[in-house]
Amino acid sequence: MKKPTIALTMGDPAGIGPEVILRALADPSLHELCHLVVFGDAEILTRCANVIGLPMPEVTLLSEEQFASGTKSDSSAIIDLRRLTTEAFATGQVSAACGQASYDYIQAAISAALAEQVDAVTTAPINKEALRAAGIHYPGHTEMFAQRAHAQRWCMMQYSLEITCSFVTVHVGYAEVPALITAERVLDTIELTADALRKIRRREPHLVVCGLNPHAGENGLFGRREEEQHILPAIEEARRRGISVAGPLPPDSAFLPGRRQETDAFVCMYHDQGHIPVKALAFDSAVNTTLGLSVLRTSVDHGTAFDIAWQGKARPHSLFAAIQLAVQLAARGL
Amino acid sequence: MKKPTIALTMGDPAGIGPEVILRALADPSLHELCHLVVFGDAEILTRCANVIGLPMPEVTLLSEEQFASGTKSDSSAIIDLRRLTTEAFATGQVSAACGQASYDYIQAAISAALAEQVDAVTTAPINKEALRAAGIHYPGHTEMFAQRAHAQRWCMMQYSLEITCSFVTVHVGYAEVPALITAERVLDTIELTADALRKIRRREPHLVVCGLNPHAGENGLFGRREEEQHILPAIEEARRRGISVAGPLPPDSAFLPGRRQETDAFVCMYHDQGHIPVKALAFDSAVNTTLGLSVLRTSVDHGTAFDIAWQGKARPHSLFAAIQLAVQLAARGL
Repeated sequence: MKKPTIALTMGDPAGIGPEVILRALADPSLHELCHLVVFGDAEILTRCANVIGLPMPEVTLLSEEQFASGTKSDSSAIIDLRRLTTEAFATGQVSAACGQASYDYIQAAISAALAEQVDAVTTAPINKEALRAAGIHYPGHTEMFAQRAHAQRWCMMQYSLEITCSFVTVHVGYAEVPALITAERVLDTIELTADALRKIRRREPHLVVCGLNPHAGENGLFGRREEEQHILPAIEEARRRGISVAGPLPPDSAFLPGRRQETDAFVCMYHDQGHIPVKALAFDSAVNTTLGLSVLRTSVDHGTAFDIAWQGKARPHSLFAAIQLAVQLAARGL
Repeated sequence: MKKPTIALTMGDPAGIGPEVILRALADPSLHELCHLVVFGDAEILTRCANVIGLPMPEVTLLSEEQFASGTKSDSSAIIDLRRLTTEAFATGQVSAACGQASYDYIQAAISAALAEQVDAVTTAPINKEALRAAGIHYPGHTEMFAQRAHAQRWCMMQYSLEITCSFVTVHVGYAEVPALITAERVLDTIELTADALRKIRRREPHLVVCGLNPHAGENGLFGRREEEQHILPAIEEARRRGISVAGPLPPDSAFLPGRRQETDAFVCMYHDQGHIPVKALAFDSAVNTTLGLSVLRTSVDHGTAFDIAWQGKARPHSLFAAIQLAVQLAARGL
């Protein structure tokens, strides 16, 4: 089986992105799984390696033009986008320059994925304040990918060995959620989640769908019957399409240990319904992924961690897990 | 120090209430902590003991009239309310008769607490369907106690050794929550929680207040600035009153393991924000309590479990934990 090629974006240069990318490039187990192609600045990576006392990994260095013209590498590579130099920013600080550079790395990686030069993109952390300072307004990676990959339907999923959650809504205010819960959107999320888990587990998965209200509404006692009107019809249609899915369950008892053991993924109605149990139970091992896009994408589940950036302290295991999930999803084509 | 007297309500007779009450009456460690006074039906308890093969505990039996007229017991006692006989219901089944009886046990216990014949009430599980069948419409115990104990302000708290959460709103639909979040209500919940944790920990507690929106609104990026308008002013006022309190924190990162270790209690904006982590982390050891009432009340954190009722399988440790918390809170007066 051909090894997949995974694009890695370098993330905000002032954060822990460069050093976790260096750890990934230096890791032999990842090289056995895939080719890694970093989209970033070679000078910054070299400087970061010096600062944290790591030898610069021996990988091919390609210019943006070389890569765009089809020059390939048999091993892992750095695509040197030359957007920024180490003199132009301070580590651990928010800056428009770093926001712009981190955005450019992502756009270059998306272009490579759309051109099928890479099989998937794994992203290092960006800083929203830095993006905003550069005049770039996206709630997160997910929306950047969704826009360019022209998705009809997509959803975010947080994957870990302990617990996996996908989301009907994500980056919207608490009060806006109910109007966004439609049977169509719930069904899309169930189907996208079932597709992904089928690839990861290599068998039919079992899903649980959470209700919106406390006690899943308890037959109309709480809420506005969102469960009966929107969630239940989606579950019934998903079952007709052959998906093994339970719900709508009371959101709190959905995540009881016994239930977790028999559930491959939970379909959650809103951001914190799933992020709270994922962070409480799999705090630093979860991987973000966006399902349904024409570009496959996974991401670390941590931020830029400016307080410990460029000190060699950052643990790279969330990036490793994100790369491994990208390989799993890419191996059979998403 | 005088042992406190803890009232135990028998719960729905068709559920696991009677058998966990029998286990509590038979436990020597609880008798060292307190006097237990059960509000229920003696005939049903005796029959349940027979069915599950447990000797009937040797406790004083008092009629409702004897207890009301001030007859006391030096040891634990059963107040025989004679509301129901075992012939009048089927175990493991919802019935109006059981709903009415379980309601009557609670009302008798509240009366005893208001008359200061008991120091606190610990409740066994009731069944909402059975209550409704009897024409009794309350979302739960909390509201029954709140009505009779004439509370100016009160809140629900879930306590466990692993994680403790109190609630600004509880049994309302998802969509109704934002309108109920006011600075006054958040401040009340912070103060009630700090008071309770001071008694439990016997030192000044440290609290964390969660935001309402994903990422606690991220400076207005998500939501309608509920954090800045209502939650933050309450936190600032609580600090002026000497309470150690952080927030509003992003609800998902609030429950990370490191944060949990340094936090005595989390003030949550809505039911599932706190119930999800409590059930995921302390699934069968949490105790419910209602803070701020003139009657102190704790409760098991499980339901009537009709599927295993009267089989001797029910584990009584949630009831034991609820009694122990009642003793802690009562010992110094709430």
